[in-house]
Amino acid sequence: MNRPAARRRTLQVSGESRVIGSDRIDVLVSEVGPRDGLQNVAAVMPTAAKIAWIEALIGAGLSEIEIGSFVSPKRLPQMADTAAVAAAFADETRATIMALVPNLEGAERASAAGVDKVTIPVSASRTHSLANIGMTREQAIGQVAAIRALADARATGRARIGVEVGISTAFGCTMEGPVPEDDVIRLAVAAAEAGADVVNLSDTTGMGHPAQVRRLFRRLAAELGAKAGGAHFHDTRGQGLANVVAALDAGVVTFDSSLAGLGGCPYAPGASGNIVTEDLVFLLESMGLRTGVDLERLIAARRVVAEALPGEPLYGHVAEAGLPKGFVPASAARGGA
Amino acid sequence: MNRPAARRRTLQVSGESRVIGSDRIDVLVSEVGPRDGLQNVAAVMPTAAKIAWIEALIGAGLSEIEIGSFVSPKRLPQMADTAAVAAAFADETRATIMALVPNLEGAERASAAGVDKVTIPVSASRTHSLANIGMTREQAIGQVAAIRALADARATGRARIGVEVGISTAFGCTMEGPVPEDDVIRLAVAAAEAGADVVNLSDTTGMGHPAQVRRLFRRLAAELGAKAGGAHFHDTRGQGLANVVAALDAGVVTFDSSLAGLGGCPYAPGASGNIVTEDLVFLLESMGLRTGVDLERLIAARRVVAEALPGEPLYGHVAEAGLPKGFVPASAARGGA
Repeated sequence: MNRPAARRRTLQVSGESRVIGSDRIDVLVSEVGPRDGLQNVAAVMPTAAKIAWIEALIGAGLSEIEIGSFVSPKRLPQMADTAAVAAAFADETRATIMALVPNLEGAERASAAGVDKVTIPVSASRTHSLANIGMTREQAIGQVAAIRALADARATGRARIGVEVGISTAFGCTMEGPVPEDDVIRLAVAAAEAGADVVNLSDTTGMGHPAQVRRLFRRLAAELGAKAGGAHFHDTRGQGLANVVAALDAGVVTFDSSLAGLGGCPYAPGASGNIVTEDLVFLLESMGLRTGVDLERLIAARRVVAEALPGEPLYGHVAEAGLPKGFVPASAARGGA
Repeated sequence: MNRPAARRRTLQVSGESRVIGSDRIDVLVSEVGPRDGLQNVAAVMPTAAKIAWIEALIGAGLSEIEIGSFVSPKRLPQMADTAAVAAAFADETRATIMALVPNLEGAERASAAGVDKVTIPVSASRTHSLANIGMTREQAIGQVAAIRALADARATGRARIGVEVGISTAFGCTMEGPVPEDDVIRLAVAAAEAGADVVNLSDTTGMGHPAQVRRLFRRLAAELGAKAGGAHFHDTRGQGLANVVAALDAGVVTFDSSLAGLGGCPYAPGASGNIVTEDLVFLLESMGLRTGVDLERLIAARRVVAEALPGEPLYGHVAEAGLPKGFVPASAARGGA
């Protein structure tokens, strides 16, 4: 198999360093359901249910959770309680607690709420940037620099908020169509220069394909080195896990996904949900790549979502088909989980 | 991109040779819906509807269609009219008309019906072999030899029925669990020695993963050379297209799939449908690999199935999401279709 090089990356988490690509896990699965999933659902999940869901996710072994976003509650009422959710995990040591922030104001709220890490969307498409965050791409890069300065100013000892940038519409835009790869790389470089610790590429619109994924992530690694980040894929056209295989080939070791495939982007018409965490973990563990996630506990965590969001469709093949007879996950075989 | 080597293979079709990997197409998509799809559907599709469906598939540019199987009509009443369907395509020159046959008797009926090619299932799992075709694996290899002799005896000039073998449960068995890879390769070699023109590997049960797919298809190519065949994947656990990416890496250039993801194996409990032809073609064409298939006409062909099988679920992401803005398929860009 084309095993990705065991790239060791150190993510800064408040008070400690977390080593990814260590002896414990080979690939980091970053759960985005409580943010990317919920923001595309009409119903507002009660705070207690969000906390129970995140508890269940961490209990299943997920070590990074995007718990919400600090945006205007008028625009996304589902995210109005993100600070309260963060407070419930203030002393969490098993997982990195992260939140999406579109600007400095959001980052200030995130910092006050005590999250470990923020992720900032910077769109590769001009039109999507204006629609999604009401800023030009250049203004978004300016916010990255301001958030970097904030993180440095608030740092105490080794504890410092991690700053991640996700380049959205990196594989195409529903409004503009194909997005020039040079634009994607130029913005990724600008985000890194503005102070991002790591820069991800996001297929917000589910337009990416494996050849493009290999090409763009190889360019990202060549340009950004240790700041080259993970992949955020949507399964709009069923290509999500195919793109994961291509990204693994290109050395990517961090993937965003959403339990039960909840999610999407309300400002990219036609874009549907994130890749399904259960199916992603099954893929990786089958291939011998340890995620540290217990698949049976992960599948059981769907119940929390089903009860909190009655009538909301839950996706995922593995949860429906069950694990194959005789299946031994890599984490169990090699002592990762 | 990891473009598969432009392997040139010549499939024997009645009266002519068809070159795959030629200037016209890079990857052969072999449609199995009228056989693998329908055999897992409770309703019996009327003969006229089958013919209209196959016409639509050929019209969309698919150049190989598995139109049915020659099995006991008591066991699979959906397949009772396969000879009548074959008769409707007796003079078809745009596509290879093939049928599944489990034994010599089926091959005799297929030959009389005038199909271009037969495919014979040989299970890598002892238990599945007995359940699926009522024969041991060794008896199944014996049938391959008998069918080879029949094909040679009935050959006239260059016209000769093609003989394909598909190794089923090659990636795992719902009854036995993991299947030793040595068993898979041993049976593939035995099938080739018994006279198969080409030997495919089938993930009948949707248990395969990309690392296993790369490994097994590389071994198959090393052992069988020009007789190493294509991949037949099911999407039971959502890994179908991920496995296609891995198979492409291993040099595979032929893939089975089913329009709207109809299909499965009624004798492998828990196994669900084939990979979706529309999503497969989108994957390949996006990656720059010409299939010769017109995606819009392919999506339109779903209507024939929807009308003939009311209430039957149709799957597929691309049909639901539509083609991305600005999408240019490789076949159009490079003059394949």
